[in-house]
Amino acid sequence: MTQHITIVGVGLIGGSFALALREAGYDAKFTGVGRNQKALERAVERGIIDDWQVSAADAVANSDLVLVATPVGAIDHVFAQMAPALKPETIVTDAGSVKQSVIESARARLPAFENFVPAHPIAGTEHSGVEAGFSTLYKGKRLILTPVAETSPVATDTVAQLWQATGAVTEQMDSKHHDAVFAATSHLPHMLAFSLVETLYRMDKVSPLLHHTGGGFADYTRIASSDPVMWRDVCLYNREALLLSLDEFKNGLETLVSAIEAKDGDTLEQLFITAKQTRDTKVLPAEKTTQRQLTDQPD
Amino acid sequence: MTQHITIVGVGLIGGSFALALREAGYDAKFTGVGRNQKALERAVERGIIDDWQVSAADAVANSDLVLVATPVGAIDHVFAQMAPALKPETIVTDAGSVKQSVIESARARLPAFENFVPAHPIAGTEHSGVEAGFSTLYKGKRLILTPVAETSPVATDTVAQLWQATGAVTEQMDSKHHDAVFAATSHLPHMLAFSLVETLYRMDKVSPLLHHTGGGFADYTRIASSDPVMWRDVCLYNREALLLSLDEFKNGLETLVSAIEAKDGDTLEQLFITAKQTRDTKVLPAEKTTQRQLTDQPD
Repeated sequence: MTQHITIVGVGLIGGSFALALREAGYDAKFTGVGRNQKALERAVERGIIDDWQVSAADAVANSDLVLVATPVGAIDHVFAQMAPALKPETIVTDAGSVKQSVIESARARLPAFENFVPAHPIAGTEHSGVEAGFSTLYKGKRLILTPVAETSPVATDTVAQLWQATGAVTEQMDSKHHDAVFAATSHLPHMLAFSLVETLYRMDKVSPLLHHTGGGFADYTRIASSDPVMWRDVCLYNREALLLSLDEFKNGLETLVSAIEAKDGDTLEQLFITAKQTRDTKVLPAEKTTQRQLTDQPD
Repeated sequence: MTQHITIVGVGLIGGSFALALREAGYDAKFTGVGRNQKALERAVERGIIDDWQVSAADAVANSDLVLVATPVGAIDHVFAQMAPALKPETIVTDAGSVKQSVIESARARLPAFENFVPAHPIAGTEHSGVEAGFSTLYKGKRLILTPVAETSPVATDTVAQLWQATGAVTEQMDSKHHDAVFAATSHLPHMLAFSLVETLYRMDKVSPLLHHTGGGFADYTRIASSDPVMWRDVCLYNREALLLSLDEFKNGLETLVSAIEAKDGDTLEQLFITAKQTRDTKVLPAEKTTQRQLTDQPD
């Protein structure tokens, strides 16, 4: 029975986790940990957590489960801080967008590596911080677990059941495969959105054009409003896989640019047909995603 | 009084134009022109047009107004076909995403260039064809007119009023400025979306990953399902401006890639902060776009 849950990083991801469990009637004490005491106070006001600590060590000493929901780059430090105070039977999990580096940190830092369950909720909005959390964030969304050979199946089950209680659909995947897949399908699109908006920012300084962007552009660049620190860390901690995806994209874009330069309409049309057919047939629309998740086989 | 309107290209744009005018109570006869007779029959069934012709010349002979709503690359040919049959007082307008090339075609082909009104509705979906049109497509959307010095103000007013009746908010802009602005704010994002999906298509052939994409990716790549022929033509007819925007983007992306390679977290974070602040403050969300358009000054 998980009676005392500590959440390190009470932002969009950690806050929504607690709110969803409370809404599901889950009867546990939630303790928050963070650096910003005002934000922690606000999290108490919002009913996300019951109390808070500035020190992770103080908070985890009596916890049954600890969720580390900070940007990936902070996780190693959090593990190091809390390790001396952790009971060996306490389950530790995370919510990082990159899994291999977090697993290595856990292996190096935590007293009972077998009770560390690496996890990644495929959910979010472009908002961040204590005000951003809401109880339905995970409803119908995927939660990917990437346990390793040493990971305790009991610990994995406990974490999976908590996420299922938030409304998420859990599946398992190899951590290396996870990092490669999400480099291409999530991290690469975020890089393109950030880079597109930054490009228009530079062009706008020479000749104003941003005031001509509207609803369509706002929708397309929504993910460029995501948390800069989180995405800096994804770049640094999933560096090799992301560089590979960026390299593939640069090659593809170069083919497109060359075809425009050469006025090669056939190549352009074929490239756009390939993209359209791929999106129309292989990329599931939002409304069908949940159904797919329920029937998809774990990797 | 515009009693007989001919629409060349009865797809998403042309079909929605007719449906919106009919819904607004506009009492005119609508004649469709296209190459696909089945689609034209279907347009009659859907109540979009009253009748149809395969030959643009036959259709325009008695028209008060002609809207050419084909892909940009077909417009020159349509102008040439219909020119011999056009009455000089007939107003001709278009809906192309590129304006300078269409204006040059009109100047070369049409008997009364002063009655040609270049126009561009900033509206669309990722769907195309006769089934895609709907009466509310233009509600609250921008319609940009790019008349030149020779253009008749009366003709411009007539076209503006028709679009206003569809629910669009009209504004005027210089055609060269239009092409530069939309190269950056619309054509470039479409290129990135097409290229991203095509990249994942190639990567998926080596190691399957497309089945891991879901709602977020589908939203982000929605515009990659747009009509391949339309976008081929945008590439060919707005080539210089689009290549300039692509070049700016490639420079920006190279800065990003170099920072990841160098593990330069500060540069990455600053780049993401710039993008986030730009989107949060300079890019208006969809729900605020209409209000902005009403108060925005034409260029």
